[in-house]
Amino acid sequence: MDILDSLRNIIGPDHVLTGSDTAGFATDWIGKYENTPLAVLRPASVDEVSRIMALANDTGTPVVPVSGHTGLAGGAHAPEGSVMLSLTRLNKIRQIKPDARLAIVDGGVVLESLHHAVAEHGLRFPMTFGAQGSCMIAGMLATNAGGSNVLKFGNTRALCIGIEAVLPDGRVLDLMSELHKDNSGYDLRNLLIGSEGTLAVITGAVLKLVPAPAARATALLALDTLTDALSVLNRLQKATGGAVEAFEYMPAHYMSAIHTHLEGLNPVFGTEPNMTILAEIASTAPKDALPGPDGSLPLDATFENILAEAIEAGQIQDAVIAQNDTQRSQMWTRREAAAEVCLSRNPLVNNDISLPLDQVEPFLTRMKAELIQLDPGAETLEVAHLGDGNIHYNVYPSTPALCDPVMELVEDVVRNLGGSFSAEHGIGVSKLQSMQRRKDPVALAVMHQIKQALDPKGIMNPGKVLPNCGEVIFRAGQL
Amino acid sequence: MDILDSLRNIIGPDHVLTGSDTAGFATDWIGKYENTPLAVLRPASVDEVSRIMALANDTGTPVVPVSGHTGLAGGAHAPEGSVMLSLTRLNKIRQIKPDARLAIVDGGVVLESLHHAVAEHGLRFPMTFGAQGSCMIAGMLATNAGGSNVLKFGNTRALCIGIEAVLPDGRVLDLMSELHKDNSGYDLRNLLIGSEGTLAVITGAVLKLVPAPAARATALLALDTLTDALSVLNRLQKATGGAVEAFEYMPAHYMSAIHTHLEGLNPVFGTEPNMTILAEIASTAPKDALPGPDGSLPLDATFENILAEAIEAGQIQDAVIAQNDTQRSQMWTRREAAAEVCLSRNPLVNNDISLPLDQVEPFLTRMKAELIQLDPGAETLEVAHLGDGNIHYNVYPSTPALCDPVMELVEDVVRNLGGSFSAEHGIGVSKLQSMQRRKDPVALAVMHQIKQALDPKGIMNPGKVLPNCGEVIFRAGQL
Repeated sequence: MDILDSLRNIIGPDHVLTGSDTAGFATDWIGKYENTPLAVLRPASVDEVSRIMALANDTGTPVVPVSGHTGLAGGAHAPEGSVMLSLTRLNKIRQIKPDARLAIVDGGVVLESLHHAVAEHGLRFPMTFGAQGSCMIAGMLATNAGGSNVLKFGNTRALCIGIEAVLPDGRVLDLMSELHKDNSGYDLRNLLIGSEGTLAVITGAVLKLVPAPAARATALLALDTLTDALSVLNRLQKATGGAVEAFEYMPAHYMSAIHTHLEGLNPVFGTEPNMTILAEIASTAPKDALPGPDGSLPLDATFENILAEAIEAGQIQDAVIAQNDTQRSQMWTRREAAAEVCLSRNPLVNNDISLPLDQVEPFLTRMKAELIQLDPGAETLEVAHLGDGNIHYNVYPSTPALCDPVMELVEDVVRNLGGSFSAEHGIGVSKLQSMQRRKDPVALAVMHQIKQALDPKGIMNPGKVLPNCGEVIFRAGQL
Repeated sequence: MDILDSLRNIIGPDHVLTGSDTAGFATDWIGKYENTPLAVLRPASVDEVSRIMALANDTGTPVVPVSGHTGLAGGAHAPEGSVMLSLTRLNKIRQIKPDARLAIVDGGVVLESLHHAVAEHGLRFPMTFGAQGSCMIAGMLATNAGGSNVLKFGNTRALCIGIEAVLPDGRVLDLMSELHKDNSGYDLRNLLIGSEGTLAVITGAVLKLVPAPAARATALLALDTLTDALSVLNRLQKATGGAVEAFEYMPAHYMSAIHTHLEGLNPVFGTEPNMTILAEIASTAPKDALPGPDGSLPLDATFENILAEAIEAGQIQDAVIAQNDTQRSQMWTRREAAAEVCLSRNPLVNNDISLPLDQVEPFLTRMKAELIQLDPGAETLEVAHLGDGNIHYNVYPSTPALCDPVMELVEDVVRNLGGSFSAEHGIGVSKLQSMQRRKDPVALAVMHQIKQALDPKGIMNPGKVLPNCGEVIFRAGQL
C-alpha cells in the first residue's frame, strides 16, 4: 500500500493534506524556508500520532512536527519526501487545576488561548511574546521559547513540570507528572524541551501557573547609556524586592523604524532618546493594589518614586508611566512588533544572542567598529530583552554574499565576550553553521550519540539542531 | 602494568588509597551499604579525572564517584572490583561574581563552605539541608538535591546554569555557561543533573546566587490538621506576595522523638500539638528591614499580623516567633536532626515521596489504615517539606521480612494519589525495585538507551538508578 493510503487509514482522508491543500504550510512565518512535503498530517489524538510515527519509522519517512509555524530558525522546515505532522487538532486544554496552579494541555493549544483560559481563574501562564496568538505549546516547548517575562519567571523549561511525547518509533513517553519534586531517573523532560522536534513529537504538557498580578505598572524610560540602564534595572529590583517582569531595550533607530511602520503610534518623547526602555513591575500582594486616600495605587506610587530617584541621579532623562490598559498595550505594541519590523528585509542576518549583562554595551560598541570594516554598507536593527542579556541583533549586509562573514563576525565577538550564538530562538537550520563552528565539540558528539540512540533511522525532524545529521534543503544565499 | 600502578602514575601514590587507608570510605553515612572498592582515588584536577576515566574505560573498571557520602539512597555504593573516585581535592571555589550573582566552583566544594564564601559578598546560595556541612556540590547536583528552601528557590537543578563533567571515556564536557539563556542544542546539563554519577563525573558548576535577605522571620506554629496547615501556607503566600521560604511539617510523635534525642531542647508548646510547622519568610527589600518608631521590624510585624489572623480564624492554635538568631537556629535544629533521628533505627523503610499538596493528608490517613493491616507492629516517623508535598515517610516494620511489602504498600498508595516514589533523595540502589515496578516502562527503556549510548561499557557507577544495569551488592535484608 502507498504510504499516503496507510496514513489516510490512520487519521482519515480529510486529514492527509496534499497538493494545493498544503498551501498554508508552504513556508514558515518569516518566509525564509520553503516546504515541499509529501503531505501535511493532522492527527487528532496521541494514539494517532503514535501510529503515524510507527509507520514513518517502518518506512523510513522523515517526519517534521509543526505547531504554530512561527519559529525564527527554520526548525519546522519540511524538505522533499518528508511529512509534516501538524498539531492543529490536538488543541484541548485537558484540565486547569486552580488550587494546584497547573494547566494540563495538549501540545497544539495556542499560547493565547491558554492565557485567556487561565485568566478566568485569576491565574496567569507567564510566557509572553509577539507570536502568542498563533504559536502552540508544543512548539514553545520544542524551542524552549523565551520572551519578555523570562527575567522574572524563566524560560519555557522553567514553567513545565510534565510532558507527554511520542518517540520516533511510536512509543508514547508519559511523563505527565503534576509534582514539583520528582527524582526518579534521568531528566527526559528537559532533554525533550529544546530539542526542536528532533527526538520526539511533544503531544502534551503540565504547565505551572502563577497568580494574576493584583497590580501592574508599566513605563517607557528615556535613557542615554546602557550603563545607566543596568543601574536603573538594579535600582528597580532592589527597591521592589525583585518585582521587575520586563526590561526591554529599544534603541533610537529601532523606535524610528517602529513609528514609521506602525500607523497611529507616535514618538513618546519630544526628542528621540538614545534608547527607550520598556519597564514593567507587578505584584500579587493585595496591599499593592489597594488605592490610597488620594486614589493612587501603591505600586504606581512606588514605581514613580523609584523613577524620580533615577531621574534625580541622572540615570533617566524622562519617563512616561501608562495610565490605563490602552496606554500599556501601546507601549507593548512597540516592542512586540519587533519580529514583523526587523525580519521583513533582505538580505538579513538574524542573530539571537545572549551575553553576560555587563557585556551588552561592549558587544554593541565592538560590533559597530568591526562591522563597518567588514561591510561599510551594512545596517543594523536591534532590540533586546536587556534583563536577560539577550539581544536580537539583526544585520542587513549590503550583499547576500556577506551574510555568512557577518554571522561569523558576530559569533566571534559574542564568543570573546562569553556569550552564546543562540539564546531563545533555537538552532533549527539557520544556526547549524554556528553550531558546527562554536559549540563545544564534546557536547556536539554527545548530542549525536543521543540522537542516534533514540532515533537510529534519523526520521525525526532530520537536518535540524545537529550539523551533518540528515539532509537540509534551503533557498540559496539565505542562510 | 597493574591497574593500581597505572592509577598511581596518574595521580601520585599518596592519592590511591587501599587497605586500611580506605576506612573512611567503608560505608555511607547511614551505614547501610558496605563499600569494598579496589582503591579510593583522590584526583586533584579535571585532567586527572579525565585520565582516570580513560584508563577505567580501557580496562573495563567500574568507577563510583563519591563526594560527601551523605546520600540517602546508596548512590555511592562501591562494589567489589570498583574504584571510588573521591572529589575531596577538587575543592576550589574558582570565582565568585557578585555583580552577575554567580559562583563558579569545583565539584568537591562543601556546600557550607560555599554558603560562607558568598555571604561575604552579601549573597546567598539558597540550598539548605541537614548534610550541608559535609555534602559537596557535585553530589548535590548528581542527586538533584532538594532541602528546605525548594518552595521558594527550586531544587539544585533550578540553581545551576553551567556544568563541567568527565564522560565515561575520559572526554571533558565543558558546559560552564554563565548565561541565563542559551538554546544551543540538547540540554545535557539537566541530563547530568540527577543522573547520580551514572553518566559522568561532575567536576565543576556555575551556580546562581541570590541577595542575602535583608530581613527574615521564623516561627513554630501549633496546628490541628493538615487542611489548616495548607490554608495557613496559602494565607502566608498571598499576604507576603510569595515570600515563604520554608514550611516544614513535624507531627507530634516526631517532636517527641526529637526532644528525647536532642539534649537541651524542650517542647515549645505546653501540650504537644497534633503537628508543628516551622515557617520562615524572608525579604530582600530594605523597607522590610527598617525598624519602625517602636524598634520592631516591618517583616516581623507583617508575620505577626498574618499569624494573628490565622489564630483568629481557628487555623493555628499557638505560635512562637524567633526573637533572635539563637532561637531561630534552635527551631531549625529540630527539623534538621530528622535524618539523624529517623534513620538510626532498623529495620527501616526509608521513603522519600512526593504528592500533590492536597493529597498529603489522604496519604497519611490511608497509610495509617493500611499499614496496620499489613503489619500491626509497624511504627512510623515522618517529617515533610509540606510546601513541596514531599514527605520523608519512615516506617519501622516489626520484622525485616516486611520491609519490601511495606515499600510496595507505600508505592501503591503514592501512585493512586498521583505521587512519586522518589522526590529528592534519588534512586541509588535503595529505590531500584520501586523504579522497576513503578516508573513508566517507556521512560525506563529510553533511560537505558541513553546509558548505553554514553557508557557502552557500563563502567560509570554501575548498578545505580537503572534496574538490571550492572551488579548490585548490598547487605541482605536491608533493601
